[in-house]
Amino acid sequence: MRERGTLRVMDKKRRFMVKPDPDDGRLTRLLDGVDQDGAAIEARVVEERPLTLFLNSQEIVTVMTIRDYPEYLALGYLLNQNMLRQDDEVTGIDYDEDIETVVVRTKRATDYEATLRKKTLTSGCAQGTVFGDLMERFEATVLDPDARLKTSWLYALSRAINMQPSLYLAAGAIHGCVLCEEARPLVYMEDVGRHNAIDKIAGYMFRNGIGAPDKIMYTTGRLTSEMVIKTVTMGIPILISRSGFTAWGVELAREAGLTLIGRARGKRFVALAGADRLVYDADASAVAEEAKHHRRKGSIAAEDAA
Amino acid sequence: MRERGTLRVMDKKRRFMVKPDPDDGRLTRLLDGVDQDGAAIEARVVEERPLTLFLNSQEIVTVMTIRDYPEYLALGYLLNQNMLRQDDEVTGIDYDEDIETVVVRTKRATDYEATLRKKTLTSGCAQGTVFGDLMERFEATVLDPDARLKTSWLYALSRAINMQPSLYLAAGAIHGCVLCEEARPLVYMEDVGRHNAIDKIAGYMFRNGIGAPDKIMYTTGRLTSEMVIKTVTMGIPILISRSGFTAWGVELAREAGLTLIGRARGKRFVALAGADRLVYDADASAVAEEAKHHRRKGSIAAEDAA
Repeated sequence: MRERGTLRVMDKKRRFMVKPDPDDGRLTRLLDGVDQDGAAIEARVVEERPLTLFLNSQEIVTVMTIRDYPEYLALGYLLNQNMLRQDDEVTGIDYDEDIETVVVRTKRATDYEATLRKKTLTSGCAQGTVFGDLMERFEATVLDPDARLKTSWLYALSRAINMQPSLYLAAGAIHGCVLCEEARPLVYMEDVGRHNAIDKIAGYMFRNGIGAPDKIMYTTGRLTSEMVIKTVTMGIPILISRSGFTAWGVELAREAGLTLIGRARGKRFVALAGADRLVYDADASAVAEEAKHHRRKGSIAAEDAA
Repeated sequence: MRERGTLRVMDKKRRFMVKPDPDDGRLTRLLDGVDQDGAAIEARVVEERPLTLFLNSQEIVTVMTIRDYPEYLALGYLLNQNMLRQDDEVTGIDYDEDIETVVVRTKRATDYEATLRKKTLTSGCAQGTVFGDLMERFEATVLDPDARLKTSWLYALSRAINMQPSLYLAAGAIHGCVLCEEARPLVYMEDVGRHNAIDKIAGYMFRNGIGAPDKIMYTTGRLTSEMVIKTVTMGIPILISRSGFTAWGVELAREAGLTLIGRARGKRFVALAGADRLVYDADASAVAEEAKHHRRKGSIAAEDAA
């Protein structure tokens, strides 16, 4: 609890406890190629590396990741797959770069052979595996009805996140998720799949005792069923995306009472669930059009919409 | 072979043996919501429905799909997962809309309990499951070294595909894959995950005896490892995307001798593998900039990248 108290104070002071590091040479690679004129060029491409997750003695899965935060990814994956509980005592997390593994050790004995057999592949940019008992937890989750989203926060967050240097702007073809509080982006994670990005945020929140009810999740990608399920099971009442909706994502958001906002670009956005949490305190007409920002930024990003 | 002959003739005559049907009311839904001013609006959203695939008596997987071509999706999924072989005799495909299942029956007895235990989750917009023996098939595949890609075809394909009415233009948040031959788009499939779209193309090719060596695959999404693996195992030597690259995707393309072209927008593109198949017969400077086309098209699409 002490940790949490400390962080709350820090939140007030600054943004981005975690932010992308496009200058980290381990995360991108320059590859030789040719362009439309046959001229030799170099293209910056995001790295992706395998990482095998173990829970105690049980091998769980191998994921492809940029591997900037293997420990947070492992913790968050296990939490979001309901294999690790919020009240679990983690006795150790061992990342071994050479053999590309992370082992999460818990005081409680675990065995997910059975769980692992029961899977459903989900759509879109989804890691692809949702476990049956995860849906039970999803249905049991009650999101804070008193949480609010001021439109002024939404506009401030979009601006801050879009202007923040990132691997997306440097190399494209990567997804980002940002944990926010009011108008402040706090934890900005990127990865080759947005499911990894949100899992890393879940791991960071668990490790640093950050509460969910007063937070907002921002994602660059589609509002798929899996993004909704993860956000809800994490206990976060609001999910915002600059991208679009999927039908099942909207259905699940309405079931769970999640505020679901998509197509958030410039002054425009669409809320298809939980609009009752919105507080219209900003003058939309005063917000600059996204298109301008987007073009002004230049960068590879415009070309690399996932 | 007779079927193939027939189709070859048809190819010469027309484009789009299969194309998106944005007017099909079963594929999208109008949902009530509010916009940035708190005004009530209706947003068109793509449907996604579960579909459980059986191979003979074995339940294989449940996928989320728009379910426009359940039989092709089932066939293509099984082919691309190496559970069905090109020389397999399919004795029946039964789609039951009520219980949301497709059963593919083969003359050869099949049993994939073992295969199903061995999985790796892949990155990006990937269905998430690549089987070990699939990689063996990938490594064994030899792509036609004599295949060529004229830049004039590439520009003509991009133009034809971007101008074609689609669910993407109508509702966004959906991926498309297009099987092409020279400058002609032949089979344009869309789905909530691009893995479904390419699987439906594989199923269509199998069912209609369409050969792969002289074809080109075009995708709207990122060039992930899974897209490269599927394209290569399908025997298609060229993969084009308007979107970006992932490092593992490029590595695999180089290993397999696949021509990999990304960021194909307007006159620009980047080739990071197999550039030796390119024939520069077009005047790039004469090609209109993508941006103009893109804006002229208007539509939700610009907002709903990935």
